[in-house]
Amino acid sequence: MTRGENNPIRVGVLGARGRMGATVVRAVEAAPDLEVVAALDAGDELSALTGARAEVVVDFTHPDAVLDNLRFLVENGIAAVVGTTGFTEERLSTVREWLRDKPGLGVLVAPNFALGAVLAMRFAQQAARFYESVEIIELHHNRKADAPSGTAAHTARLVAEARREAGLKPGADATTSEVDGARGALVDEVRVHSVRLPGLVAHEEILFGQEGETLTIRHDSMDRTSFMPGVLLGVREVLGRPGLTVGLENVLDL
Amino acid sequence: MTRGENNPIRVGVLGARGRMGATVVRAVEAAPDLEVVAALDAGDELSALTGARAEVVVDFTHPDAVLDNLRFLVENGIAAVVGTTGFTEERLSTVREWLRDKPGLGVLVAPNFALGAVLAMRFAQQAARFYESVEIIELHHNRKADAPSGTAAHTARLVAEARREAGLKPGADATTSEVDGARGALVDEVRVHSVRLPGLVAHEEILFGQEGETLTIRHDSMDRTSFMPGVLLGVREVLGRPGLTVGLENVLDL
Amino acid sequence: MTRGENNPIRVGVLGARGRMGATVVRAVEAAPDLEVVAALDAGDELSALTGARAEVVVDFTHPDAVLDNLRFLVENGIAAVVGTTGFTEERLSTVREWLRDKPGLGVLVAPNFALGAVLAMRFAQQAARFYESVEIIELHHNRKADAPSGTAAHTARLVAEARREAGLKPGADATTSEVDGARGALVDEVRVHSVRLPGLVAHEEILFGQEGETLTIRHDSMDRTSFMPGVLLGVREVLGRPGLTVGLENVLDL
Amino acid sequence: MTRGENNPIRVGVLGARGRMGATVVRAVEAAPDLEVVAALDAGDELSALTGARAEVVVDFTHPDAVLDNLRFLVENGIAAVVGTTGFTEERLSTVREWLRDKPGLGVLVAPNFALGAVLAMRFAQQAARFYESVEIIELHHNRKADAPSGTAAHTARLVAEARREAGLKPGADATTSEVDGARGALVDEVRVHSVRLPGLVAHEEILFGQEGETLTIRHDSMDRTSFMPGVLLGVREVLGRPGLTVGLENVLDL
Repeated sequence: MTRGENNPIRVGVLGARGRMGATVVRAVEAAPDLEVVAALDAGDELSALTGARAEVVVDFTHPDAVLDNLRFLVENGIAAVVGTTGFTEERLSTVREWLRDKPGLGVLVAPNFALGAVLAMRFAQQAARFYESVEIIELHHNRKADAPSGTAAHTARLVAEARREAGLKPGADATTSEVDGARGALVDEVRVHSVRLPGLVAHEEILFGQEGETLTIRHDSMDRTSFMPGVLLGVREVLGRPGLTVGLENVLDL
Repeated sequence: MTRGENNPIRVGVLGARGRMGATVVRAVEAAPDLEVVAALDAGDELSALTGARAEVVVDFTHPDAVLDNLRFLVENGIAAVVGTTGFTEERLSTVREWLRDKPGLGVLVAPNFALGAVLAMRFAQQAARFYESVEIIELHHNRKADAPSGTAAHTARLVAEARREAGLKPGADATTSEVDGARGALVDEVRVHSVRLPGLVAHEEILFGQEGETLTIRHDSMDRTSFMPGVLLGVREVLGRPGLTVGLENVLDL
Repeated sequence: MTRGENNPIRVGVLGARGRMGATVVRAVEAAPDLEVVAALDAGDELSALTGARAEVVVDFTHPDAVLDNLRFLVENGIAAVVGTTGFTEERLSTVREWLRDKPGLGVLVAPNFALGAVLAMRFAQQAARFYESVEIIELHHNRKADAPSGTAAHTARLVAEARREAGLKPGADATTSEVDGARGALVDEVRVHSVRLPGLVAHEEILFGQEGETLTIRHDSMDRTSFMPGVLLGVREVLGRPGLTVGLENVLDL
Repeated sequence: MTRGENNPIRVGVLGARGRMGATVVRAVEAAPDLEVVAALDAGDELSALTGARAEVVVDFTHPDAVLDNLRFLVENGIAAVVGTTGFTEERLSTVREWLRDKPGLGVLVAPNFALGAVLAMRFAQQAARFYESVEIIELHHNRKADAPSGTAAHTARLVAEARREAGLKPGADATTSEVDGARGALVDEVRVHSVRLPGLVAHEEILFGQEGETLTIRHDSMDRTSFMPGVLLGVREVLGRPGLTVGLENVLDL
């Protein structure tokens, strides 16, 4: 996939003045096998991307703008790596529709580009059927509005599904006396606990247990630079993956 | 306090055939500065303790039996280390009353003899006033009936009290959207999260946070042998502490 | 694989009076789809296994006895699950040779039956190529003679191999001033740190890092009951796996 | 100590354009009971401090400059909080000498202003005499030059001293076969393990163990904002503490 320094992949960035976009620009520039050929933000003309002969465009913009961006990219045969939020099943269908007429063209939409978060979810899915019980603890700074985090809730659902497929029932729980909330939130039969403290950043821990042993998978994310290896991997991989791919886990070849 | 091998402290054990009592007998026998002079259980005559000239008696019996035991011990001038549960404020007053006529005689009643649990609580109290926020996670095997654990709830109250004394308000929490229970139980303004998994034993984690840093105090308890250093310390210290002492923390001289 | 309660798998146990063997007997008896038909130890006649029509035999005996046991089992068409240590490459070849004449018959030899330890190794292998750096911490009780533990050293080699296959060089390390030993042992280019403390049992932590994030995989083992799910899984799976299988990871279908 | 919003403490900052100094300026400005009256850097005249009637000056400058700064401050009766490194015993004696003629004036020199690091050390000292064994793990980003970290080495020495005072011998260690370095560095009889990974920041873990239980004290530091609560506490406390105080732990009143 890596094309090397003599023939770098030509990358455009949308939302280049936003915090994520700016970080993407720097990360692409630092990669020897990639080069930034266009860095645009709201108000700039998308035609600059075709003018610069971008092969892949990274979009960290806004739910209101991203569909228009994607239509332009698909029409012009430019692959896309999208981290913008707000993708409903309906929106994904629309993109799939557009791509039908463009065999060979790929779009990758991922809610989470942190490799560690994606790997943690994957390993949790794999471990799920071997353990009687599982619980999740996620810990974030105290400026976060939702509890549990989207990633933790998503992990809970993936783990619950893997357990059901293996014929496992919810783990035994002898709790008969509970102060309200002590045992956490129930997300698809999996208990999720949300800790909020200043000083924390973004952390998730999946704990599996059975008689005599526990297995813990933990991901600690410090800042948005942690998304860059995933974004760059997406840029390199999307060129070889026609059609719509949802979720970074699908390009990891685990 | 340690009297040494030539003049060991003469120890009696009540509840000696119970699991805790039997462990106490073995631990006392293994300590060079202590010796077991009587090991009794339900049905045995308490007079065996005076006959054996016990100086200190360790009581891990039953809430129904412990007060009668203590009255006998106090009347006969024998110091006591008590791990039996069920001590209400009223019961403690009764014991205090009995001790009034016995200057020099000591009784130690402690709900928790695990040194690490007691130290963790003490450190949590000391750290409380320096941090904006605090939360507690306790993790136990899934045969436990109550959530949160008594130790975690007690820690929460001690920490809350230390925060109030320092004029601290509850830590900021931006949660606006919560799946029921995600943010744990509120015990005296402190969030407590209870994890239950087979394979776990008894674990408590107190997390303090402020901008840029966190401090974590964690206690892991594997089995009842972990209570023995605290019981032995109590035996050695109670001889020098007249009156009623409640809580192992008061003999630690921190 | 599971045959169910009406037609349980007929299991024999060798080394049944040893600590592991006795635990195996209890675990097999507790499983509804398995039944113990023979429990033998040193001195007992192996013919009791054929007499009892055992289908699978679990062997936790001794390096001196295990090869004779295996020859008997293979000759009599009985599948085997072997946790006895001391299997060199030469011994494995011998067993493979014996099995050549018994198409359909399976033998599983595994150095570690703790599912969590095996999963942790597997996940570490999978994660290895996505991270710049990796280090391992293993923590055991202070009665352990070797450092690092065999499991940690094995994990280090698996991770190192996966990194080499991905073309990764050893992670950067700016250490210029080191108190001897601070940076741990170097096992096949991976740093391994061995902590020894009373109160610990057996714990392993594999830490992966790159700019802005870390991924941690941790296994905690409390006692030998933790090996039972792996042994039972082996019993169920070995009937469907002809030939010699080395390592529990190969029956997990990850 | 807190003087409140109507009568804020007048604070000067030296090294105000450096990274720590600039962070101090912002932190002081954000505190309602403190105000910045002078923010100087190399080349500025110290007389601006007296002109602005600074009561306390925070110095994060350079080992070459700090002694001249301190002489000026002491001569002018201005209290000082000093985070600049390079204080030898000789330098401390010099400052003590200067302060002899200024009863009532205080100077606080601290190598570490992270409250959590200071608390962790203090708790480790307190716990030391209750445990058979102790080991330290410190984890830092892989750009760090020294192993173990200064904080971990200092903690090891404090813990070792507390153990010696309690008459404890080094914890038992059954290791007979060791890959070089596996058991870490020996700092004053305490094992210290140094992990280096990108993605980590600065973390220290002190593990105490005895039969059946472990106690862990962990400090995680994310960035230099974590030093600010300690610096502000120093500013508030130094006004009431005449003479030279070395180490933030001495103003914590634990």
